[in-house]
Amino acid sequence: MEKTKIILAGPRGKMGSEALRLIQHTEHFELVACLDRKYAGMKVKDLEGLPPFDVEIFTNPQEVFQHMHADVLIDLTSPEVGYTHAKLALENGIRPVVGTTGFTVEQLEELEQLSKEKGLGVVIAPNFAVGAVLMMQFAKWAAKYFPDVEIIEKHHDQKLDAPSGTAVKTAELIKEVREQKVQGHPNEKETIDGARGANFDGMRIHSVRLPGLIAHQEVIFGGTGESLTIKHDSYHRQSFMNGVKLAVEQVQKVNAFVYGLENLLE
Amino acid sequence: MEKTKIILAGPRGKMGSEALRLIQHTEHFELVACLDRKYAGMKVKDLEGLPPFDVEIFTNPQEVFQHMHADVLIDLTSPEVGYTHAKLALENGIRPVVGTTGFTVEQLEELEQLSKEKGLGVVIAPNFAVGAVLMMQFAKWAAKYFPDVEIIEKHHDQKLDAPSGTAVKTAELIKEVREQKVQGHPNEKETIDGARGANFDGMRIHSVRLPGLIAHQEVIFGGTGESLTIKHDSYHRQSFMNGVKLAVEQVQKVNAFVYGLENLLE
Amino acid sequence: MEKTKIILAGPRGKMGSEALRLIQHTEHFELVACLDRKYAGMKVKDLEGLPPFDVEIFTNPQEVFQHMHADVLIDLTSPEVGYTHAKLALENGIRPVVGTTGFTVEQLEELEQLSKEKGLGVVIAPNFAVGAVLMMQFAKWAAKYFPDVEIIEKHHDQKLDAPSGTAVKTAELIKEVREQKVQGHPNEKETIDGARGANFDGMRIHSVRLPGLIAHQEVIFGGTGESLTIKHDSYHRQSFMNGVKLAVEQVQKVNAFVYGLENLLE
Amino acid sequence: MEKTKIILAGPRGKMGSEALRLIQHTEHFELVACLDRKYAGMKVKDLEGLPPFDVEIFTNPQEVFQHMHADVLIDLTSPEVGYTHAKLALENGIRPVVGTTGFTVEQLEELEQLSKEKGLGVVIAPNFAVGAVLMMQFAKWAAKYFPDVEIIEKHHDQKLDAPSGTAVKTAELIKEVREQKVQGHPNEKETIDGARGANFDGMRIHSVRLPGLIAHQEVIFGGTGESLTIKHDSYHRQSFMNGVKLAVEQVQKVNAFVYGLENLLE
Repeated sequence: MEKTKIILAGPRGKMGSEALRLIQHTEHFELVACLDRKYAGMKVKDLEGLPPFDVEIFTNPQEVFQHMHADVLIDLTSPEVGYTHAKLALENGIRPVVGTTGFTVEQLEELEQLSKEKGLGVVIAPNFAVGAVLMMQFAKWAAKYFPDVEIIEKHHDQKLDAPSGTAVKTAELIKEVREQKVQGHPNEKETIDGARGANFDGMRIHSVRLPGLIAHQEVIFGGTGESLTIKHDSYHRQSFMNGVKLAVEQVQKVNAFVYGLENLLE
Repeated sequence: MEKTKIILAGPRGKMGSEALRLIQHTEHFELVACLDRKYAGMKVKDLEGLPPFDVEIFTNPQEVFQHMHADVLIDLTSPEVGYTHAKLALENGIRPVVGTTGFTVEQLEELEQLSKEKGLGVVIAPNFAVGAVLMMQFAKWAAKYFPDVEIIEKHHDQKLDAPSGTAVKTAELIKEVREQKVQGHPNEKETIDGARGANFDGMRIHSVRLPGLIAHQEVIFGGTGESLTIKHDSYHRQSFMNGVKLAVEQVQKVNAFVYGLENLLE
Repeated sequence: MEKTKIILAGPRGKMGSEALRLIQHTEHFELVACLDRKYAGMKVKDLEGLPPFDVEIFTNPQEVFQHMHADVLIDLTSPEVGYTHAKLALENGIRPVVGTTGFTVEQLEELEQLSKEKGLGVVIAPNFAVGAVLMMQFAKWAAKYFPDVEIIEKHHDQKLDAPSGTAVKTAELIKEVREQKVQGHPNEKETIDGARGANFDGMRIHSVRLPGLIAHQEVIFGGTGESLTIKHDSYHRQSFMNGVKLAVEQVQKVNAFVYGLENLLE
Repeated sequence: MEKTKIILAGPRGKMGSEALRLIQHTEHFELVACLDRKYAGMKVKDLEGLPPFDVEIFTNPQEVFQHMHADVLIDLTSPEVGYTHAKLALENGIRPVVGTTGFTVEQLEELEQLSKEKGLGVVIAPNFAVGAVLMMQFAKWAAKYFPDVEIIEKHHDQKLDAPSGTAVKTAELIKEVREQKVQGHPNEKETIDGARGANFDGMRIHSVRLPGLIAHQEVIFGGTGESLTIKHDSYHRQSFMNGVKLAVEQVQKVNAFVYGLENLLE
């Protein structure tokens, strides 16, 4: 099998350095260059804490996309920079895989248009955790048959917002298919405020915060005489790399614009 | 909405009596007759422990299918009887919903042929528990992306066989799509025999038996830095009625032969 | 071993009929009489739905305690009646085991005093579920070392109050030993009200209500790098009978007044 | 409050470096010296990856115990060295806290004797994870009332032995108090070998091995109509530091020899 030639943007970030390790341990992946804000002309192996790739770092995206022969760009930078990188990559015949939640609708439409013109695959993913994305898809499926559902998400106690973004996203997906209803007994009463959790369109979401925990979510469906639970435990950000790997493999097979990892998980 | 007219075969069995309660509590369902081995001419309400339906019991299937106007036959008897009932029902323009694991391939083919000729829907389901069927479908889906999987099933301690039929069925479905591999460390060692559970095609199945438990199963997928768990808890045989209800509703919309509830759960 | 001679008060209630089955299936227990509001002179076996004991029913407590030779009274009636029964039993040399949450402090003190005078054991228990009582004791113990704790209780959706009585009782027991603190990040924010659950002295309690569920509770403790969970699942009211059996056995060994099953679980 | 003056042996090991961070973040702890095989005369802050303590490293135990004024020795080295260190520390009036499973009975007896002579506390602990130790104590307690119990332990798939040491230790503790019995139905049959797990004195132990998992154990008790589960999740070796902290605090209050953290958890 021919190796996939990859340019990585953002090698020094938490996600970027995991992506370097992914490439290092994947036989059919090959790193050909990195794109960074700094360190032009240095090698990846010169930077502390990164795998010893004998591969050059560029700071000018135009330059790296034109002069290096590559199949795929993995971009793990910021929304603003990621958008520019993705556009330039496409214009130079390179398929972008971008991890971000921050693109505007206009930016997404522009990239989709460019993807069509060039006939090149693009993958934009707000969430690369295959397990979390499957959990949400299963939950959406189950909600058609079990309209009674509650979500429990558990995180470490340094997390500021409750419910978590993933819990809200899950509830939104469920809402698309769930027969609208208010759950619980019509006369139920909270003897202490908040006991029944957050009310999202009649469903309930509960947020647990404890030291020691990492990132966990359960979606519980109840029906007559049975319950069905879908649970995801995230122990380490390495988990995102399963999705990056999948996206890099698929972006070369599809010649279309794909938003959301779920569309690669048939 | 017009009510669905139903003939129920096997009203005195555990499943049959639950089906009576289902019909009783479903506004758009109407019981028009029962088919039983005994009690010809009596009413359902005359039998102890059954809901007070003022509906006649027949022992002759030919007679009930010809003389009672009905849309659907729910058959919760035995494989032999169920097959004869389903055939006669189809011949009389009634759509059968049959719960059984016991039909032969020939019987299934014959019913499929008859369904085609008559242009009438048929649903044959080995398992009517919607939650359990969804668990198996989700597991099959997840196994494409997570080839490392173990199953833990837990039942009351009066159960004779281990692993359970559902656990084996789940493993078979996973096997269809899972990249073949032997899990665990190549040098792993059991210091007490059986610790690593039953080996099914490289996957592991663990059977817990304890008093108090009813019927529970977890399918656990592990990937780098994450795990995904699908869990079904069955607390009462009423849970099968969700699937019976769905089948009765769907058998009137499809004009085809359907084997397995999963094919009604898009 | 000599059999324990038992008088049962309240044989027709849900708990009472389970207690009859307990006595029926316990070799060293023997039913000598029942005490009821009705059916004086009839036999237990004459009442529909009860085990076929050839044992007489009394409506006059004085009469049954004086004329029947018995070791233990199991009282599963109401607080008012239970108090009178317990007192009369003690006065007649019979040790009472009473399941109730409704006694006043004065009534408890009076029974304790009478127990001392007579040198006879008494067991009064608000909760006979051994598993639930152990869960609470373990939680109280763990809270000394893990002050960060949240409680998730799950019940069927016909339950009216949230949080459940057991959850509040658990939190009260934890509060007795837990280093007082407000959990979670000081700046945490609920983007939907109630997400973080009910606040009980800085701990959080979450109440899930779904059809299919029965009665379940988890107490989750978090510490640096670890979590400890104590979980109780109640599937059937039979579970209370473990505690009734234990109380009947122990009330004959202790010659003291015991309030709460936890004091019999060393 | 006066600070506890601590000498740490083994600062460069995985556990030792966590202990340095513990001291760094505990207000009432103060590091006065380290004991190592190498780097005599250097400072802790000179070693890469360690917290910036301006504290000297010694290689001669006699010297550090005699010349540095300290209250407690934390020893996280090896059994052979740890024994010598503990003895010397006691002889110099310093209370040792040692994490090891490797001491011989003779060594333990000798340390106990020395502790008595000097009237100084000693804590030797095979396991410093407070959560795991509590799980085992709770399991031992529950087993008195629920003789039916199964253990499920889950670890990453690089673990070689099954069942885990903690699972076997838990089963041994349960065995001390559990009414001996063979669990499951007398006629139960494994249709695939190993389904019912490892048989330890009639109890069953199941070992799950999956990538992504860290170290998890559940002890499940079943009784009529209920189940009770005690679960410990270990996400990071930092969790051991809760126990080290407790041991350092307690070793100054007790003037006795203590083997096993459980004896400090009343």
